[in-house]
Amino acid sequence: MPIRVTVWGENVHEHKNRTVAQVYPQTMHGTIAAALNGQDGITATTATLQDPDHGLTAARLAETDVLVWWGHAAHGEVQDAIVDRVCNAVWGGMGAIFLHSAHFAKPFKRLMGAPCNLTWREAGERERLWVTSRQHPIAAGLPDHFELEHEEMYGEPFGVPEPLETVFVSWFAGGEVFRSGLTYRRGAGNIFYFRPGHETYPTYHDANVQRVIANAVRWAHNPAPRIANPNDAPNVPVQSALEPITERGPRLHQDGQEGLR
Amino acid sequence: MPIRVTVWGENVHEHKNRTVAQVYPQTMHGTIAAALNGQDGITATTATLQDPDHGLTAARLAETDVLVWWGHAAHGEVQDAIVDRVCNAVWGGMGAIFLHSAHFAKPFKRLMGAPCNLTWREAGERERLWVTSRQHPIAAGLPDHFELEHEEMYGEPFGVPEPLETVFVSWFAGGEVFRSGLTYRRGAGNIFYFRPGHETYPTYHDANVQRVIANAVRWAHNPAPRIANPNDAPNVPVQSALEPITERGPRLHQDGQEGLR
Amino acid sequence: MPIRVTVWGENVHEHKNRTVAQVYPQTMHGTIAAALNGQDGITATTATLQDPDHGLTAARLAETDVLVWWGHAAHGEVQDAIVDRVCNAVWGGMGAIFLHSAHFAKPFKRLMGAPCNLTWREAGERERLWVTSRQHPIAAGLPDHFELEHEEMYGEPFGVPEPLETVFVSWFAGGEVFRSGLTYRRGAGNIFYFRPGHETYPTYHDANVQRVIANAVRWAHNPAPRIANPNDAPNVPVQSALEPITERGPRLHQDGQEGLR
Amino acid sequence: MPIRVTVWGENVHEHKNRTVAQVYPQTMHGTIAAALNGQDGITATTATLQDPDHGLTAARLAETDVLVWWGHAAHGEVQDAIVDRVCNAVWGGMGAIFLHSAHFAKPFKRLMGAPCNLTWREAGERERLWVTSRQHPIAAGLPDHFELEHEEMYGEPFGVPEPLETVFVSWFAGGEVFRSGLTYRRGAGNIFYFRPGHETYPTYHDANVQRVIANAVRWAHNPAPRIANPNDAPNVPVQSALEPITERGPRLHQDGQEGLR
Repeated sequence: MPIRVTVWGENVHEHKNRTVAQVYPQTMHGTIAAALNGQDGITATTATLQDPDHGLTAARLAETDVLVWWGHAAHGEVQDAIVDRVCNAVWGGMGAIFLHSAHFAKPFKRLMGAPCNLTWREAGERERLWVTSRQHPIAAGLPDHFELEHEEMYGEPFGVPEPLETVFVSWFAGGEVFRSGLTYRRGAGNIFYFRPGHETYPTYHDANVQRVIANAVRWAHNPAPRIANPNDAPNVPVQSALEPITERGPRLHQDGQEGLR
Repeated sequence: MPIRVTVWGENVHEHKNRTVAQVYPQTMHGTIAAALNGQDGITATTATLQDPDHGLTAARLAETDVLVWWGHAAHGEVQDAIVDRVCNAVWGGMGAIFLHSAHFAKPFKRLMGAPCNLTWREAGERERLWVTSRQHPIAAGLPDHFELEHEEMYGEPFGVPEPLETVFVSWFAGGEVFRSGLTYRRGAGNIFYFRPGHETYPTYHDANVQRVIANAVRWAHNPAPRIANPNDAPNVPVQSALEPITERGPRLHQDGQEGLR
Repeated sequence: MPIRVTVWGENVHEHKNRTVAQVYPQTMHGTIAAALNGQDGITATTATLQDPDHGLTAARLAETDVLVWWGHAAHGEVQDAIVDRVCNAVWGGMGAIFLHSAHFAKPFKRLMGAPCNLTWREAGERERLWVTSRQHPIAAGLPDHFELEHEEMYGEPFGVPEPLETVFVSWFAGGEVFRSGLTYRRGAGNIFYFRPGHETYPTYHDANVQRVIANAVRWAHNPAPRIANPNDAPNVPVQSALEPITERGPRLHQDGQEGLR
Repeated sequence: MPIRVTVWGENVHEHKNRTVAQVYPQTMHGTIAAALNGQDGITATTATLQDPDHGLTAARLAETDVLVWWGHAAHGEVQDAIVDRVCNAVWGGMGAIFLHSAHFAKPFKRLMGAPCNLTWREAGERERLWVTSRQHPIAAGLPDHFELEHEEMYGEPFGVPEPLETVFVSWFAGGEVFRSGLTYRRGAGNIFYFRPGHETYPTYHDANVQRVIANAVRWAHNPAPRIANPNDAPNVPVQSALEPITERGPRLHQDGQEGLR
């Protein structure tokens, strides 16, 4: 059974900015999904900010193995209830890949628990991505480095938690560096942040970038059943304790009572 | 100059539950603060849920080097604006220590980006904490293990991100284990989660527990100046690039424009 | 193509100790390999200390996707040249699973760079392993905990580096805990340490233990091509620099010279 | 009491290479030690390859809080027994800072358990180090980035384990990047790797570099007592178990017997 990917696009600049519309006539999310659909074992669909529930209903998330997220101009328009729903799906086992300016997307910030800030410059300068973890599955089939001739610069310090693994670090012509491929786990969900993808440049048409995203989809996919309630904090009654114990001392909770939140 | 600690207490069960009132006649936060004030180089004050702004005004946080947090019954009553303020202070460099049931406190969950759930049982059973990182500063002066004769059980899986370091793991008489001392960094802020401290037991009167909290305060203290705006994402103009570059390609942003959020 | 596993056994106590011989009439490595051969997509063979080159020739390692290692009585008899060969294979991408008393095996200590020490007691006491990372692939198909009625105790502090992820923590009847499932990466090789398996108990006949080992084999398998020389540190000539630079200042090395070691 | 630092220098190129002798008339280790001695609360002495026991007797290590290591031309001449002694001291709590070409020093490789390889180019090109962990103690008092006008290039992938924290990442004029400041813990010892310092350039005269090394000394210093035998793996007799247990099943070991190694 193929890995089911939902590519979420903010879908704003493609319609408001002539350059973006020209570079991505099929939209950015459409371009990314099309590239993923060309890969063995992956089937990708799209969802956008403008859809009801931003296209991310509970049913849709239940059928999504890996969510890919691109946003930039309208982070603030994403409803908090949908952010909660996405985070819960990740905690339950859905993979999540956040691209470029999604460093400031609400679900990414929520999952990181950190400011996720950086420095930036829009000058169409050269970016060179270096693999920092040899033979990492997300770098499968890539050379030790690859270049994007025109990209926006993102510079360190990048305000994210220490990752499980740093997979890519970027060099920029203007003199900055950036940890541009980072892995995390939150609950049962695997998360990958990947830096490239400013909307005025043809980054998502690049074969290496497409390969990284496809590799990351495979890496992030958790085949285990989705955890129904990833926030569950069950009481273990004294009678069910695995070792025989006797209740002692005062109690706050009554039998069968739920924990306080 | 001493490390300035604010011990935040929810301050509910001390007044509603006779047992808690008897165990902590000076309140829980008062007990913790008194123990810290008995330590060299630490000065501790308290703040509570019932204070204006929960006692956590911007001015108060600016004067707090390390915040200690205990809450249980009233997590939901903590205002979201204060949670944001606390997280920003942590990102800017304030240390934070979350105790026991604060695993479900809003600021802890926000900083972790994870469900932070667990299993639990209130049976007054024996807990034994083992040091898992030899000579770690948070374990300074402790034996390899110590016991709390009566404690609430918290069991794995504990739904938190992988820590920087696991400092303690707990054994429970009823058969469970728990990673009970965990370190994190978020932005410039050091965070420590420490498990013990159910309100019906005299845990915060225990000398080893008091020592861990004092050690954790020293460990979490970041003497660097607090970052004024830990979310700042400054534009680096092309003219100021560290290496000479020429602007190329189309642009989305105008000169001097702020980044999109 | 199946994952090719070599199960390495020290093969000493099976022949010297009557109890071990009775519990493992097919030897320990033979038992583990047989269980793995019952799994889809895995094919396992064995090698022992007594074989020429301990059964670990360069050719054999080249055909080994994942090496499983059990040793106890004869760590000191493993030749250093073979240890180097094993470490190089791991750095090049071979997976490695170290079982129980292999915490003191030469290749494990070499790969960890740490003392790998612990406390221990041989009393046939109950061990209960708790999953600490929900839905981790190494815990696939397992319940939240499982028990081994008779095991040797290993206690914290366990002198290993902080792992990438802690997958299991053990509870012991005598009062200790132990981080009993830990993941690492060294070079391109994935490493898993798994605690259970004292030779006088039937641990490797246990279905849950067999499942963990099979899961770990799948997790540790790196399908990328083995790196031929994982220690290579190539010089990048000035003429081949990716950005045009001019050589400046004094030099220590001549053109084409190898780096110093 | 000041932090006692031993700066270990290979002390070869200062005497064989005229350039190195001119740049470091007081030797490299002498220059580093002199800079440390100018810092409050640090007292530094030196030791060299040519000294008996390479200057690293057991007594000397016992009086060393933090060891700073620079080597390049003569890694192979360091005796294995001394490497073992250094690793044991680190495991027992001695801090260790490895500089530049010490990535291939025997004790660093032993402590990492990894190939520690990289790419390199000696062209006197510009290196710019970026702080990647805001307000980290090792970056105290530094700007967000600083430059070394002439340095040897080291390029990714750098074959080291994932660090606890990445503190610096370097940009090179020729197009490469490198994780140039990394923290680790092995046993009770804190370890920092810091990239700059090719012997033909005046790097250790640079104020920012000197500040990083002094900061790293303070960070690496573990004030806890040195562990006498960091490899100790004590047996816990059944009679001394913290919870009452009865010995069951067959045994391999006799009472009071040491564990097998």
